[in-house]
Amino acid sequence: MADLTLHEDPLSGNCYKIRLTAALLGIPLELRRYDIMRGETRTPEFLAKVNANGRIPVLQIGSGESARFLPESNAACWYLAEGTGLVPGDRFDRADMLRWMFFEQYNHEPNIATLRFWLSFIGEAHLSPQQRAMVPAKRIAGEDALELMDNHLASRVWFVGSEASLADVVLFAYTHVAEMGGFRLEDHKHVCAWLGRMAALPGFVPME
Amino acid sequence: MADLTLHEDPLSGNCYKIRLTAALLGIPLELRRYDIMRGETRTPEFLAKVNANGRIPVLQIGSGESARFLPESNAACWYLAEGTGLVPGDRFDRADMLRWMFFEQYNHEPNIATLRFWLSFIGEAHLSPQQRAMVPAKRIAGEDALELMDNHLASRVWFVGSEASLADVVLFAYTHVAEMGGFRLEDHKHVCAWLGRMAALPGFVPME
Repeated sequence: MADLTLHEDPLSGNCYKIRLTAALLGIPLELRRYDIMRGETRTPEFLAKVNANGRIPVLQIGSGESARFLPESNAACWYLAEGTGLVPGDRFDRADMLRWMFFEQYNHEPNIATLRFWLSFIGEAHLSPQQRAMVPAKRIAGEDALELMDNHLASRVWFVGSEASLADVVLFAYTHVAEMGGFRLEDHKHVCAWLGRMAALPGFVPME
Repeated sequence: MADLTLHEDPLSGNCYKIRLTAALLGIPLELRRYDIMRGETRTPEFLAKVNANGRIPVLQIGSGESARFLPESNAACWYLAEGTGLVPGDRFDRADMLRWMFFEQYNHEPNIATLRFWLSFIGEAHLSPQQRAMVPAKRIAGEDALELMDNHLASRVWFVGSEASLADVVLFAYTHVAEMGGFRLEDHKHVCAWLGRMAALPGFVPME
């Protein structure tokens, strides 16, 4: 595999997913760090060269003129893990893994990660009226996501199949810090047990 | 491939994606239709058997006791298309295709599809105060998504690689009906040209 560079902010769970995937697989990543609170991913250079969407993480493959850039955290995890034990060999299970990864980006991250960012990094007192108006709906939707996960894990060790997969990795990232967004993890005991299994995986690295 | 049944609402672009993928590949799908406006995907039976998330589409593989259910539109498209020409053979391109599919669910659908649903199906006069407050931000974010697509297509025929892929299929679904959400497609000429190329693909079927 070509040299890999992760453009990231260490506070971001979306970035942590990729570091965790690489760590579980023993793949070395060079880190290039940005501070999203200071707008460092909105500079003309970043938008032109790294990601026109102005967002991190971006996984850079190769360097110099031939470098290629892959935005979207879950796509970067896929790039690293395809063909490894973190992607199931069965066709249905592979699609089912992607199902949980799309669930993560649609139902989980916009609620749980956003409330974490708003409450723990921006601070409740500094929210805009628009943001403040959205908190109750995000609270309910985030709780629904955790409840759905808890029910699913009631009869399962991992989200898909019989081994940890990218579905577990990407859902772990913002679930294990959900309390920073005001969610009570102890209400979801199957989720808590699964968080413990994740942290015990060989090669596991914690979020910083 | 086992018998395939799509649990869907014909008004939903997320359901149409799967029908379009199947049509482009010549895969027969049985259709089981629900009316989301009447809550038909929130019945106890639907939640217990088809999707605990209460959402469609769901792709059902097989029937009877051995049936398996795959929620999330983009995961269902992947299940159908894996190993076909709609999924690139190159590792980077395959991950880059997923990148656009995650972009679609995170940056495009929650803005463009939601405004279409609110304005063309619920109706502006019937929006809740919370929904009304979210319209301006969704308008800006949806425009940003269309602009990003337009810039990307300025120098490309398809989103990834040299042939149409699932990235094109899933982005087509809500882009081609974006005007129902109050977006002006004529402002995005590269997007318009690409919509025309999509509609000319062999096997293409229109949304109902």
